[in-house]
Amino acid sequence: MVQEPQKLLKEDESLSSESDYGLNVDMVHFITSALEEGDSARVRELAADLHSADVAELLNQISSEQRIKLAGFIKQDFDPEIFPDLEGEVVEDVIGALGSKRTAKAISQLESDDAMQVIEDLDEEGQQAILEAMPRADRAMLEEGLAFEEDSAGRLMNRQFVSIPRNWTVGKTIDFLRNQEDLPNDFYEIFVVDKDELAVGSVLVSRVIRSARETKIKDIYDEDLKTVALDTDQEEVGYLFQKYNLASAPVVDDVGHIVGVISLDDVVYVIEEEAEEDFMRLGGVSRIDLNRTAARTAYARFPWLFVNLLTAIAASVVIALFEGAIEKIVALAVMMPIVASMGGNAGTQSLTIAVRALATKELTSTNVRRIIGKEMLSAFINGISFAVIVAAASYLYQPDIMLSLVFAGATLITLCVAGCAGVSIPIVLMRMGVDPAIASGVFLTTVTDIVGFFTFLGLAAYILL
Amino acid sequence: MVQEPQKLLKEDESLSSESDYGLNVDMVHFITSALEEGDSARVRELAADLHSADVAELLNQISSEQRIKLAGFIKQDFDPEIFPDLEGEVVEDVIGALGSKRTAKAISQLESDDAMQVIEDLDEEGQQAILEAMPRADRAMLEEGLAFEEDSAGRLMNRQFVSIPRNWTVGKTIDFLRNQEDLPNDFYEIFVVDKDELAVGSVLVSRVIRSARETKIKDIYDEDLKTVALDTDQEEVGYLFQKYNLASAPVVDDVGHIVGVISLDDVVYVIEEEAEEDFMRLGGVSRIDLNRTAARTAYARFPWLFVNLLTAIAASVVIALFEGAIEKIVALAVMMPIVASMGGNAGTQSLTIAVRALATKELTSTNVRRIIGKEMLSAFINGISFAVIVAAASYLYQPDIMLSLVFAGATLITLCVAGCAGVSIPIVLMRMGVDPAIASGVFLTTVTDIVGFFTFLGLAAYILL
Repeated sequence: MVQEPQKLLKEDESLSSESDYGLNVDMVHFITSALEEGDSARVRELAADLHSADVAELLNQISSEQRIKLAGFIKQDFDPEIFPDLEGEVVEDVIGALGSKRTAKAISQLESDDAMQVIEDLDEEGQQAILEAMPRADRAMLEEGLAFEEDSAGRLMNRQFVSIPRNWTVGKTIDFLRNQEDLPNDFYEIFVVDKDELAVGSVLVSRVIRSARETKIKDIYDEDLKTVALDTDQEEVGYLFQKYNLASAPVVDDVGHIVGVISLDDVVYVIEEEAEEDFMRLGGVSRIDLNRTAARTAYARFPWLFVNLLTAIAASVVIALFEGAIEKIVALAVMMPIVASMGGNAGTQSLTIAVRALATKELTSTNVRRIIGKEMLSAFINGISFAVIVAAASYLYQPDIMLSLVFAGATLITLCVAGCAGVSIPIVLMRMGVDPAIASGVFLTTVTDIVGFFTFLGLAAYILL
Repeated sequence: MVQEPQKLLKEDESLSSESDYGLNVDMVHFITSALEEGDSARVRELAADLHSADVAELLNQISSEQRIKLAGFIKQDFDPEIFPDLEGEVVEDVIGALGSKRTAKAISQLESDDAMQVIEDLDEEGQQAILEAMPRADRAMLEEGLAFEEDSAGRLMNRQFVSIPRNWTVGKTIDFLRNQEDLPNDFYEIFVVDKDELAVGSVLVSRVIRSARETKIKDIYDEDLKTVALDTDQEEVGYLFQKYNLASAPVVDDVGHIVGVISLDDVVYVIEEEAEEDFMRLGGVSRIDLNRTAARTAYARFPWLFVNLLTAIAASVVIALFEGAIEKIVALAVMMPIVASMGGNAGTQSLTIAVRALATKELTSTNVRRIIGKEMLSAFINGISFAVIVAAASYLYQPDIMLSLVFAGATLITLCVAGCAGVSIPIVLMRMGVDPAIASGVFLTTVTDIVGFFTFLGLAAYILL
């Protein structure tokens, strides 16, 4: 249908980040053109050739008006699998275009974990509208899921799983799998339960298929089963999967009965989300907000900027203490931001390592003392190096040996404090139960600005005046 | 063996980040105590009860001396699966304790992708020592793998995979799987090839096991196969898996013959690594360096701090232009860091979103204009808000309406420039083929500092003097 799209590719329109896989700019161009012309037949024709993930990507990237139009055009054959890949704001637009009834039908067709992922991001009103339009059984299952805490294993799990008694043979297992209707679309592992239905192990499907029919399950299953409790946080689930290289894990209730399964593909999403969260938080934003309006974006970012304003004012108060010194030696005003800036950057380096290592559980009580000691020594080494460099630079600007010494001294002290604060603040926050990614940065820059200005101006006032 | 470890747990020694899974502080305490006492029998006994991932975690976290001692004690029954979970510096210590021969034997027992992961991080000398001590076939396979570029699909893939002709039945497939010796330990998908051995599709193992023996493979396999070229970058592979929710994908040569397989568990590692890389780079560090010495840590962080020193000096040169103004109105020196700091933080918010959205390919040529426009409008909205706030704050400090206006004007201009620079710099760097995560921050703070100081001091000099 799309003829020689390569020839139409305009190099300058493509960011080098774009992938060879999936959507290309031509396809986007064809569809958006057809959308503008209101040619619904052509839009449907083009969209029909796309993978559901590509349709989702397209819906995520076009403007809100285009999106509503596109969803409206393709609603007759809207692939339910598109839903889980849509971003928050986008889902709302699409549901608006499809209507609650059609949406409810689509979501009913998803696996329970995917359905949950769509439903849980809606506001309460939106959830109700969809749930009410659903078949009773699906609705009950989703409502049960919503009762679990956000980001818990109970929310993440798929209700459909495969489990077999320990005393079965491979042959009986294969016959069961062939005849049972109500199984998940795909599964990698079969859980093994004892006569009380308690989870005792697992066996890979590939292991079962490779074994002779008369082989006993109890001879081939793996007893080292890692189970997940219903209220386990998804971050913890991600850690478990990564650490022990799991393909899936059963979610069990208090007694030990299996109630669902979490698979590696659910966890990939969690790992990505958790890493993104930390990345965002360190940058002072809460999440990727490409599809929010400018006003909502500004509103969401305001609090963080306001906190930063307060810390900047705190640093300015320190400067104000030394107005007299600055009046006499204006060069101090020129040099003081350098000290504070170096401190901020050096501290951020230590902070970044500490926040990340805490998130990945590489920094634990076992090595925390050693790591803090190492960070401080490392800060001291770079403190000495930069003290020498700034002293020399300062001497070139103002040939005053005492001023150079003040500059060097302040730099050394500030870098040492910055290194110490950078590694300690996240650790202290973590012990206090606060996410270090979200709050560390403010504390750190407050410390480094205040210490930077205070040591530099203080030493100057004491030594030079 | 370990009696009631709960009772021994000292609450204050545990970081709240620590997991319920795996190693606990008591176990670490018991083993390190036994290590110190040189009680090798007890160390071996304790370590034998641990999962290989837990032994790896322990080795990663204890000091270099303890690590060498521990590896020496357990070298008789050293589980090869420990190797892939060790960090760079740690691997070297462990190989030192085990010796090349024993290490080579252990690595030979790993799957080819895991073996590659261990080998590729060693320096050339270390690689040679291990490779030479290996069985010839394993050595040849690893050397072939090392010929592929770092972080490419060729490095990442497992050489062992399962593929079957399209014209087989399920029964024939099951018999083949039961009788074939040389198959991977676990696999989720079986690739389907045509009579020229070209990859044409895949079928899930769970699908095969659920089908009747007489079912034809050609009736149940999935033709929508995503293949990966040998030189594909691992970041791209991660994107492919996430986007299309893949369990595995065949790596094919130029002709289309399958040469290996990449599975989701390899990709989890890649996704984590890539997210970590961006996180680190934005913080001005290259990677988690917990096990580096302080001197090497300081050395690694020096260049970034030096670049930041240069940008701070550039900002100071701007301040020096206005020494005369500061001499007359010292309050300028007090207030100027606030403007620059606000600009830096607001710019970092936009930058964080842009860097992350580029990495996840959510920001593409389709929406780039819309997103830049939105960021600028959002920056303008917060610029107005904070202009009002700082004007009021400034008036409280110095009741000078003109000074307040200067402060407000500089804040508005700086925040607008910061928003624009924050979103544009990563995009421009990406188009130039530079990783935006690594270089964006320097450019941004240079822009925001210079603009912040220049607009504030410039407006002050022009209006107030």
